[in-house]
Amino acid sequence: MSLIGMERGDLASLVDRGVAQRRLAILGAGSWGTALALILADNAHRVCLWARNPEHAEALRRERENRRYLPGFPLPLNIEITSCLEEALTETEGVIFAVPSDAVRSVAESIRPLLPPSAFVLSATKGLEEGTGFRMSQVLMEVIPQVEKRLAVLSGPNLAVEMARGVPTATVVAAFYEETARHIQQVFAQQAVPTFRVYTSADVVGVELGGAVKNAIAIGIGVCDALGYGDNARAAFMTRGLMETIRLGRAQGAKAETFSGLSGVGDLIATAHSRLSRNYRVGYGIGQGKALEEVLREIGQVAEGVPTTRVLCDLARRYGVEMPLSQALHRLLFEGFSPEEIIRNLMLRPLKSEGASCGLETC
Amino acid sequence: MSLIGMERGDLASLVDRGVAQRRLAILGAGSWGTALALILADNAHRVCLWARNPEHAEALRRERENRRYLPGFPLPLNIEITSCLEEALTETEGVIFAVPSDAVRSVAESIRPLLPPSAFVLSATKGLEEGTGFRMSQVLMEVIPQVEKRLAVLSGPNLAVEMARGVPTATVVAAFYEETARHIQQVFAQQAVPTFRVYTSADVVGVELGGAVKNAIAIGIGVCDALGYGDNARAAFMTRGLMETIRLGRAQGAKAETFSGLSGVGDLIATAHSRLSRNYRVGYGIGQGKALEEVLREIGQVAEGVPTTRVLCDLARRYGVEMPLSQALHRLLFEGFSPEEIIRNLMLRPLKSEGASCGLETC
Repeated sequence: MSLIGMERGDLASLVDRGVAQRRLAILGAGSWGTALALILADNAHRVCLWARNPEHAEALRRERENRRYLPGFPLPLNIEITSCLEEALTETEGVIFAVPSDAVRSVAESIRPLLPPSAFVLSATKGLEEGTGFRMSQVLMEVIPQVEKRLAVLSGPNLAVEMARGVPTATVVAAFYEETARHIQQVFAQQAVPTFRVYTSADVVGVELGGAVKNAIAIGIGVCDALGYGDNARAAFMTRGLMETIRLGRAQGAKAETFSGLSGVGDLIATAHSRLSRNYRVGYGIGQGKALEEVLREIGQVAEGVPTTRVLCDLARRYGVEMPLSQALHRLLFEGFSPEEIIRNLMLRPLKSEGASCGLETC
Repeated sequence: MSLIGMERGDLASLVDRGVAQRRLAILGAGSWGTALALILADNAHRVCLWARNPEHAEALRRERENRRYLPGFPLPLNIEITSCLEEALTETEGVIFAVPSDAVRSVAESIRPLLPPSAFVLSATKGLEEGTGFRMSQVLMEVIPQVEKRLAVLSGPNLAVEMARGVPTATVVAAFYEETARHIQQVFAQQAVPTFRVYTSADVVGVELGGAVKNAIAIGIGVCDALGYGDNARAAFMTRGLMETIRLGRAQGAKAETFSGLSGVGDLIATAHSRLSRNYRVGYGIGQGKALEEVLREIGQVAEGVPTTRVLCDLARRYGVEMPLSQALHRLLFEGFSPEEIIRNLMLRPLKSEGASCGLETC
């Protein structure tokens, strides 16, 4: 039961209202892909959810629930499950990427020959590719160049479990072509009472970058907390981190104001709240003086912010922008500096004007 | 003991380094004025802390500690206490306002004949004046017009108790004249290892508005929490609230990018974390379906965000900007709408582009 009054899977009323059922493929059956599938199923679409792992797909089919990654939410009948990409993509009107960032390139290569020419491709994956420093849309365009007109990205403060619960959530879909963004906005907007509100944007770079960088910022928040600093330091770190993201974004063609929106500030605020994320826990361990290998061993999983920090420092060099907090994180994670040294250096930098030091004078 | 290694009141070392001792007056001996006094005393200045209430001044003098509003932090000897404005302002090089927003006008009128012609005036008070809708700098300029060149405002994510603990904190000082902002930056920057980092800005309007509006946004966060919504809704509410603040700010001449800084996003992030503020508790009570009078009676104190909401709706009308969240809060607080109705209306508004609906297309 959604908190604003509509039952999940209330399909009859949608079909009565003449809502078109589209066939859509979601690639990636983690918590994020499953939450997106539930939202789209609420909109009476026929969703095919693809899991790379055949056993995971089999479990989803058998249990009609994603017990492993998003337990507690039955999958309605208009969600099909498959581990076969060809099956997922047949006659699909749109493909949504919800796989981890390091899997986007290989999955894109696999779907290239299968993608219907008129289907949109929406990247809902947050992250930057190691080595190339590419955003996910850049990876997709390199692998499937002809997709540009129908390519979009989705990012915002969107915890999967809350979307599944049906509490109000807002996000941004950005595309190079306005009609693509509007089309995807409509695909998500057909509920009787929408709980998932999509705003459109033309700033693909800005929307993607905000989502990627916040994983690195979450590490910094963990460090601040481990050092016993309070809300002032945490807010200053996040804000200054946002400002250097804006600087990098502008160098790459993003608009500064996008970072004040849901995919920038919004996602940061949601992140600031979570003390359970892997990125936060990496920062907390480092702040306690542990070595990176030790912390990662304890967590036992990949923390996306660690490679992101490396990519950000590469990008800062490549684009010639000043990113003191990303560099400080790099020193902490990979160069053996102590947290106290880092903070001392940050506080002793020359005094600045807020605008000048964020490179926004010319906005 | 500060967390980054310097003892409070380590004056001898500062005097040895030839640091000038300035005479400064702080008006208002609540937690905020006292925290600012401690920071400036760390910098070897001679601070005169003015309390309106003679009994409060007497207690501060006797106990050498602000037990009522900021207990646990001894006042070093270079902080003098007075309840006499004339004493506070004699030969002062700068006056810092840290009184509640509804007291700024009357205190400004009282100091007008006492203010040394070369003294700077720094407003550290957050809020908007009821009736006029003025920011604090506008009130000060109306009462003391000749102060414009030496007037500045200070705002940022600055919890008083954390400043007193000496953990790293950053803030913004904005002035119409760059040399005024830089001068005040230097006044705050003389510690051996600064824990209070001041950034300068030329955007007085933007810096003040961010600090004022966040009190209204804190009410909204309380409503979201009372309705059982999660981090997605809370982040969306705060972000969209920020965007309508940007819209109002731009109509008043502020720069959009200021709201991405410490006095905008930074202060919001710190606010998002606090579930103890009076504003948050007002929102929480309203979200539970209580009437405003009932909630305010329970809290027993003024909550700055309540009049701010009224002022924001006046300003939205006056400047012709769309502020749907402020209007929604107004309906909730003063017009008897239920929270569910309000949320439903917000979610059912026409679908938008993120940039267009924040009025930033022309940025």
